[in-house]
Amino acid sequence: MPPRYRSFRCSVPWLILLLQALLLTRSFFGLPGVSDTYSPSNSYPEFQDVNHMVIFGFGFFLMVLRRYGFSSTGFNFLLVVLGVQCSVLAEDLLVFLRGQQNQVGMESLAKAVVSTTAVVISTGAVLGKANPVQLIVMTLVELIFFYMSRCINRTFLKVPEQLSVMHVHLFGAYFGLALTSRFPEPPPRLDKSRSTPKSELFSVLGTVFVWVFWPSFNSILASSKKKAVLNTYLALAVSAVAAFMLSALTSKDGKFRMAHIRSAVLAGGVAVSYTAEHIHHPWIAMILGLLGSVITILGSHCLQRCFNPALKLQDTSGVHFTFGLPAVLGAVAAVVVHVVEEGINTQWNDLSSLGYTAFFDIGAFCQTISTALITGLITGLILNIRLLKAVHVSKYFDDQFYWEVSFKIISE
Amino acid sequence: MPPRYRSFRCSVPWLILLLQALLLTRSFFGLPGVSDTYSPSNSYPEFQDVNHMVIFGFGFFLMVLRRYGFSSTGFNFLLVVLGVQCSVLAEDLLVFLRGQQNQVGMESLAKAVVSTTAVVISTGAVLGKANPVQLIVMTLVELIFFYMSRCINRTFLKVPEQLSVMHVHLFGAYFGLALTSRFPEPPPRLDKSRSTPKSELFSVLGTVFVWVFWPSFNSILASSKKKAVLNTYLALAVSAVAAFMLSALTSKDGKFRMAHIRSAVLAGGVAVSYTAEHIHHPWIAMILGLLGSVITILGSHCLQRCFNPALKLQDTSGVHFTFGLPAVLGAVAAVVVHVVEEGINTQWNDLSSLGYTAFFDIGAFCQTISTALITGLITGLILNIRLLKAVHVSKYFDDQFYWEVSFKIISE
Amino acid sequence: MPPRYRSFRCSVPWLILLLQALLLTRSFFGLPGVSDTYSPSNSYPEFQDVNHMVIFGFGFFLMVLRRYGFSSTGFNFLLVVLGVQCSVLAEDLLVFLRGQQNQVGMESLAKAVVSTTAVVISTGAVLGKANPVQLIVMTLVELIFFYMSRCINRTFLKVPEQLSVMHVHLFGAYFGLALTSRFPEPPPRLDKSRSTPKSELFSVLGTVFVWVFWPSFNSILASSKKKAVLNTYLALAVSAVAAFMLSALTSKDGKFRMAHIRSAVLAGGVAVSYTAEHIHHPWIAMILGLLGSVITILGSHCLQRCFNPALKLQDTSGVHFTFGLPAVLGAVAAVVVHVVEEGINTQWNDLSSLGYTAFFDIGAFCQTISTALITGLITGLILNIRLLKAVHVSKYFDDQFYWEVSFKIISE
Repeated sequence: MPPRYRSFRCSVPWLILLLQALLLTRSFFGLPGVSDTYSPSNSYPEFQDVNHMVIFGFGFFLMVLRRYGFSSTGFNFLLVVLGVQCSVLAEDLLVFLRGQQNQVGMESLAKAVVSTTAVVISTGAVLGKANPVQLIVMTLVELIFFYMSRCINRTFLKVPEQLSVMHVHLFGAYFGLALTSRFPEPPPRLDKSRSTPKSELFSVLGTVFVWVFWPSFNSILASSKKKAVLNTYLALAVSAVAAFMLSALTSKDGKFRMAHIRSAVLAGGVAVSYTAEHIHHPWIAMILGLLGSVITILGSHCLQRCFNPALKLQDTSGVHFTFGLPAVLGAVAAVVVHVVEEGINTQWNDLSSLGYTAFFDIGAFCQTISTALITGLITGLILNIRLLKAVHVSKYFDDQFYWEVSFKIISE
Repeated sequence: MPPRYRSFRCSVPWLILLLQALLLTRSFFGLPGVSDTYSPSNSYPEFQDVNHMVIFGFGFFLMVLRRYGFSSTGFNFLLVVLGVQCSVLAEDLLVFLRGQQNQVGMESLAKAVVSTTAVVISTGAVLGKANPVQLIVMTLVELIFFYMSRCINRTFLKVPEQLSVMHVHLFGAYFGLALTSRFPEPPPRLDKSRSTPKSELFSVLGTVFVWVFWPSFNSILASSKKKAVLNTYLALAVSAVAAFMLSALTSKDGKFRMAHIRSAVLAGGVAVSYTAEHIHHPWIAMILGLLGSVITILGSHCLQRCFNPALKLQDTSGVHFTFGLPAVLGAVAAVVVHVVEEGINTQWNDLSSLGYTAFFDIGAFCQTISTALITGLITGLILNIRLLKAVHVSKYFDDQFYWEVSFKIISE
Repeated sequence: MPPRYRSFRCSVPWLILLLQALLLTRSFFGLPGVSDTYSPSNSYPEFQDVNHMVIFGFGFFLMVLRRYGFSSTGFNFLLVVLGVQCSVLAEDLLVFLRGQQNQVGMESLAKAVVSTTAVVISTGAVLGKANPVQLIVMTLVELIFFYMSRCINRTFLKVPEQLSVMHVHLFGAYFGLALTSRFPEPPPRLDKSRSTPKSELFSVLGTVFVWVFWPSFNSILASSKKKAVLNTYLALAVSAVAAFMLSALTSKDGKFRMAHIRSAVLAGGVAVSYTAEHIHHPWIAMILGLLGSVITILGSHCLQRCFNPALKLQDTSGVHFTFGLPAVLGAVAAVVVHVVEEGINTQWNDLSSLGYTAFFDIGAFCQTISTALITGLITGLILNIRLLKAVHVSKYFDDQFYWEVSFKIISE
């Protein structure tokens, strides 16, 4: 007897249609005309890298569950293309409100793709639990809140434009964590929530893509691109080396664990995301990469044993330690680097100005993380109202619920 | 008892050798000398994208059949590398005939790779039915006919060079359709002609590559690259969103069907291929992407039920609705955009000149499609002569027939 | 009863930690300061290609064994990131010794990634036999010897900088071969040393990446990049065509063999690696590609039957005929091209100078190959000392020995 499915025919398509109609209307009225639409830019290869990383890399990175391959890549694809369109228009609205001339160029598109990463990261936390309707609503709400948070940072806390975008990891991870705490818990030892070697292999494939394209991600909005690329590359290399070391140290028998390595190789990229273009000495980036990897693997150990059960968090693909903790480290490092740099510039004479700088930087960090947590909680409550047809726990982590899977389940 | 195989040892290698010898000889005598061989060009990253898309993206895009993975990627690879060499020399010949200085540069190579896409699309239509000998002959004949059709378009119908190359989708799809109607029909409900989740997953992998690199494909020969990139990206994004919407609307239970999504996400790229660099307002590209997606999915429904059985078409990987119909839409849109643009320029005073413009544009479109259909039919008849050892229907869709598969079949 | 594993907990992590600490210290003291760290460079897209090719392409290219997927990609990743860091510092040391201003820029990083390819190729020869400790020691030793050999070539044999780096294929292949002869032989007909269609498919995926990015690999250090790209592309195209031809000719029943094609499509890229930027006529590159493919497939036939058993070589992934033989061909071709070019320049008047040129070129080639063989043998002896815990032959080719594989083996 086939299991009963709840049909999404009456909700998903109409929701998407409504959204797309809104976006089209907005673009019809709002987007600028002939002469100023297309500003020149030379960053097309970097844009392509970031685009590839977000759509392909993260799509396959999330493919860890044995019966959730189609949904992992498919929904990631849907959310990114929706999110990018929303971001372009939100960006456009922001620029319009500030009274500047608006333009849809490569840069605006690049910023939109980078912002959408917040959604992708949050998706990782609720992977397999949220249905498409919930995910689409989450995308919209999260992007709006992220733009709000960026606005506050930029207007009141003097965070430069490209740094405010780099808060995506922090925002995405903590938004996702707060969100997932409102979802009912799956039964422990659920077979479907495990990975198979084959699904892990696809996930490794995605991880390598994310790793390779990370320097482009950190440098696309930076003003001194070469520096950002080099620092990110070195940080990533050290964190990859450290990932193998720590995985062998912490696991039984001294074997490597693929799940550890998948998370920790990326930690370096997250940890230097704020400071990639400000670090003058490569060894600082390397140390940051090392520390990122260390807190990722230690975090994964401690959190999964003590913290998550206590707070009833179920973080399917480990976004807390993959993106959240290294982003916190990166934010702290950014404050230190900024203060030290300013200190050296003023020869440590103007301590009150230094305190002022540190205060603003720490403020931006605290504002982002608390906005993410609060709005994530609220969104979690919204997503579980009856209207959005939350999935029953027995249907978690299952492609068959959303896709016409021909006759065999994917990873069997 | 192992099944009996017909050996290709006496045909495939010698055919390839003959071709390669011809190409080498031609390149020895024909290709230009030291000084003017290498013209400068800055489009290397775009070229790399297109190359990657055609060889990797399409190769894995075609990997839908459960027992045909090696052949899908392998033969696609072989046909592309053969086709590119033939195209370079055909291009060279054309340039020589027009009395211009010939040169093998990045641009000539890029044009060759783009032209070869016609072959790749046609291969999709006969996927699993044609043996390597037939495919190689098809590649040669199709490229010659495509160059002929481009020549007519350029000489008599005043189609600019880069637009004439963009007819690849139209030509490839209808050539392939006409061709496949001459192949014997496989028995219905053949197990080998179905896909498995695993083969679909590889196909999704290829599709994402094609999607990501499509802006490079549409912009590589364009003169205003940024515009082409932005319009293509927006059209692709809208068509991806619409693909999910329509897939949920048209399928049973409101579930998504991967086969629909695979076809429809690409429709936007095909639909704007003619107009990507001429559209001034992003919303026009977005509407085109939406319409492309709509006719792809509706087409896939209607065609597979009514049209294909009536015309005895068996379009293995659905090139008709993936590339054919959106290309028709794109061609019609190109006429409208061109006429409206010219109308605005002349303030609608010179209606006869507008009619003239429209006549030429429609003429080029009709010429391409009818040449594709007629030459496709002829090629289909040629390919089924006894000499080329057409495969028996019971051997369709099977890697074992062409490859030394070690001991297990690929997707079991 | 689970099989007993030897734990690497006490060796692998500490070895990595020690190395990483050394690298960090060196980079703290050694790497240059603020002002001159970041030299401008425009080759970021090419660098990205090469990086992608070495980490992703080769990682999946090596995934041929049915139970060794995690180790193939994972260890390749580890060795590349370690190797790149070592190379950057070795490069830095060399520059320092020569009294020049040192700088870590894109170019230095690119050179490091290219050099690390030698390690990747050697890994292919001992694939599945060496444990991580042995691989890490091998990486270090091999890079040091490769830098030594490059130094000799540059100082005494007047080989230009970028050509000396292009000896990676030659050095890597013969170092790996000499190394592997010191490892105990696995029992014949071992089931684990075979490939499955699925592992072959992943390997094809990697091969296509390597193929597509090879023009970037050959051109990244070249001074006339366009020429290098075009010649490499044409050579690769011809060698891919020839690979299919020869595979059908040499195999039973005229079928294609994926293992042949995987090796031979890359032969063209290796064969023109020395001469890509010096060849003026495309047909010479095409002929080189053809010859590369021919000796790869013939070599694979003869070597596996006669040569390897006699010398007790077990070359798991066939690096001898994939990289070794085409590199020898390329080196010979480089001598001929160099002498002919010089001969034409001097109108064949100054024969003694020509002999002198040829003598130096041949000397560099012989020096590289003999250094590779001798140091490979020595390294092989070092790797099999008791301290490094060589793996017993019954544990060869098995992921379970190094990875926490969840519950099913990867390619079953």
